[in-house]
Amino acid sequence: MKLYEALADELAGLMAAGVLRPGEKLPSVRQQQERRGVSPSTVFQAYYQLEARGLIESRPRSGYYVAARRALATPEPEVSRPDAASTLVDVSELVFQVLEASRAPDIVPLGSAFPSPLLFPLNKLGRAVASSMRHIDPWSTVADLSPGNAELRRQIALRYQLDGVQVAPDDIVITNGALEALNLCLQAVARPGDTVLVESPSFYAALQALERIGLKAVEVATHPREGIELGALAAALEQHKPSACWLMTSFQNPLGSLMPPEKKQALVDLLAAHDVPLVEDDVYGELYFGAQRPALAKRFDSKGLVMHCSSFSKCLAPGFRVGWAAAGRFSRQVERLKLTTSLAAAMPSQLALAEYLGQGGYERHLRQLRVALAGQLQKMLAAIEAHFPAGTRVTQPQGGYFLWVVLPESVDALELHRLALGQGISIAPGPMFSAKRRFANCIRLNYGQAWDEGAVAVLGMLAKTSSGRGPSV
Amino acid sequence: MKLYEALADELAGLMAAGVLRPGEKLPSVRQQQERRGVSPSTVFQAYYQLEARGLIESRPRSGYYVAARRALATPEPEVSRPDAASTLVDVSELVFQVLEASRAPDIVPLGSAFPSPLLFPLNKLGRAVASSMRHIDPWSTVADLSPGNAELRRQIALRYQLDGVQVAPDDIVITNGALEALNLCLQAVARPGDTVLVESPSFYAALQALERIGLKAVEVATHPREGIELGALAAALEQHKPSACWLMTSFQNPLGSLMPPEKKQALVDLLAAHDVPLVEDDVYGELYFGAQRPALAKRFDSKGLVMHCSSFSKCLAPGFRVGWAAAGRFSRQVERLKLTTSLAAAMPSQLALAEYLGQGGYERHLRQLRVALAGQLQKMLAAIEAHFPAGTRVTQPQGGYFLWVVLPESVDALELHRLALGQGISIAPGPMFSAKRRFANCIRLNYGQAWDEGAVAVLGMLAKTSSGRGPSV
Repeated sequence: MKLYEALADELAGLMAAGVLRPGEKLPSVRQQQERRGVSPSTVFQAYYQLEARGLIESRPRSGYYVAARRALATPEPEVSRPDAASTLVDVSELVFQVLEASRAPDIVPLGSAFPSPLLFPLNKLGRAVASSMRHIDPWSTVADLSPGNAELRRQIALRYQLDGVQVAPDDIVITNGALEALNLCLQAVARPGDTVLVESPSFYAALQALERIGLKAVEVATHPREGIELGALAAALEQHKPSACWLMTSFQNPLGSLMPPEKKQALVDLLAAHDVPLVEDDVYGELYFGAQRPALAKRFDSKGLVMHCSSFSKCLAPGFRVGWAAAGRFSRQVERLKLTTSLAAAMPSQLALAEYLGQGGYERHLRQLRVALAGQLQKMLAAIEAHFPAGTRVTQPQGGYFLWVVLPESVDALELHRLALGQGISIAPGPMFSAKRRFANCIRLNYGQAWDEGAVAVLGMLAKTSSGRGPSV
Repeated sequence: MKLYEALADELAGLMAAGVLRPGEKLPSVRQQQERRGVSPSTVFQAYYQLEARGLIESRPRSGYYVAARRALATPEPEVSRPDAASTLVDVSELVFQVLEASRAPDIVPLGSAFPSPLLFPLNKLGRAVASSMRHIDPWSTVADLSPGNAELRRQIALRYQLDGVQVAPDDIVITNGALEALNLCLQAVARPGDTVLVESPSFYAALQALERIGLKAVEVATHPREGIELGALAAALEQHKPSACWLMTSFQNPLGSLMPPEKKQALVDLLAAHDVPLVEDDVYGELYFGAQRPALAKRFDSKGLVMHCSSFSKCLAPGFRVGWAAAGRFSRQVERLKLTTSLAAAMPSQLALAEYLGQGGYERHLRQLRVALAGQLQKMLAAIEAHFPAGTRVTQPQGGYFLWVVLPESVDALELHRLALGQGISIAPGPMFSAKRRFANCIRLNYGQAWDEGAVAVLGMLAKTSSGRGPSV
């Protein structure tokens, strides 16, 4: 990491921790230079980067200030209050309708599940693919069958080590993206008819997976900033005797919530006391805006009950379909399920990622990606404040690329979705994120796509109109 | 196709049809030259190729003769006689034990499920990967999500057209290999507890898939050369009211049986009369040794009930994990199951195969591959005749790379598997291929790996020893 990046991350960490507060003046360049012994250009570069991330702002002839948390003007949503009964899931039809409607190429994809493909080093990955195929060992077509390419598993294990988690390469199973990893983990521990605990709102693909396998979902109250509520979780564990708990512990989709480390620790302890496995869906964990990668719940796992799943699809190589599971005591079952489900992940993708990770440069790419996403988050929050109806609430994620917007109760998100599509804008309406079709007045917005203030303005106007607060309707 | 190849294929077809019989003299080069108006070198090249395929042999100062079907000395096995009850499948543990034991790099892989990777154009595929990534459109990471890359689906639809089957590109779903396609097709039409009809012996991965989904298998009597017995199938349809039938209609694994076209037609009609979908597993269909690609059962499908599944893994690009389903009236369900199971197939693999197929050269590769496999089949049949105990029966496949060997009843195939492993040779013992652990004295041999006569000799000796007919034991 370059010196200016380290300095920027350090300052960002102080802001996230509340040590540097909104509106507060940053040390001057001269102060930094004298006290830290760094060059003026290092300080300038660090401040420029923080400015690009939307974390600080310059005031002419005065200096740099911690940015006002503008979005504070639009308050956070409240904790979700799902009812406690379990539900057989039937959400797929709605999800498919929305996703198909959103795939048209000329749509502004605020409802997309993916960040803009322009944010990824596709050329460099292409060269890694080409290079790895030039010196390919023909036997890798057999050797790279599940659990997967040994060098790739080694690289992944090294990253776990950096995050303070001990995972042996042999306990990692390479999968066809994280979605397959999550599906296999679920099948390793749950049988049709069993119950699984999820967040509320829930990632719709989790609901679809439960639906396909014939599992029942119990949606548990979730805090918009700090993730699932442990009191509600404890009650659900007692009441439902679930086979598993499927959570996104860092930058949950759709809320963007991040469980603090001590809450993750308490979560793992609570589940361990009930002997319930945790499927930890961590595909957004690398997309943090603070100084450090958030802790993994798996870090606190002493019983092998945490099945950590992630991928390179959201942070490096979309379309390569390389994910993995580090499934603790269930590793062998997951490996066998992978073999009988789809045999192996694609060898060219595996070889290319093993080569790319070995070259270095991944960290630099990740820093650029985080800076880009953090900057776009600030723009999106400002645009929502400017254009959305009074009474709107919005989450303030510290990573990822999703926002959760709670509109006035009079707004019907499905109707808003139809109206927005008519204007060439897709959104993800709230009922996609609940087996019970709750969140009728909520939407998920993606701020990881090319920035389009106009689209957000149009969307806000439509929301105002349909909330009955629009201009002269 | 070159002229000599057309001539060779035509003659091979005459032999397969019995028009040219074993021991019969072929027309001389001069006769071919005068009657057909082709050059002597064309005739020579055709005869050389037929010789390499083991179909004809030259006798000094006499000419070319249709090769004696040496393997006729080792008779074919009889039709399988499974009992008629359905079975909850539990074969995975045995299969995993055998496959894991066979993966050691220094083992002679007669038990392998794959042909030698040296038979595939990995360098050319590597260049196609590199080239397709050089001019990649970043949006393909989204556009190539399921149902898959449009150009690849168009190329596959063109091949269906050549085979006399009308399949629209939009009705093709690209999957993570054929195994995923088969799994998704099965899930589209069967629910846990339902019954599925399969061949006897059955491909173990089919049994594992049934086991994983909680389906019951009914094994139906199967002819070693002509595939499933329609009388037995009709009885099973009446008795068990199955949700689906999963068959390998061309070059079944493990038998190598090939249903004649009229039998395929009758199969499709029979299933249609019962409104039962056919999952047609056709991954070996391109590996034919006769003059023409065998008909697809799907060709006779007028009700959209045939779900045709195949891949490039066995005939072009092992490890790329690109397969597909053309699932008739179930196409949409399969596409949606693909989206919720693993989202999409790997984009680099899809782009590379689309590019490779567009370049031409696939047919030439396939012809070389067929010639190589047909030649190795003849060697394997001769070696079995030379080295295996009296009373051995063996199938005579017209394509693929598997042989099914029925040993004397006193031979225990699982014990033989253990003995062979001790000598550095893997085999696939018969009980892997039956939910009821039948075929205790049978083995499947792979003749698509590097030829190793010594290994077959050792195996034969072990079989003789364990049949009690060995030399001085």
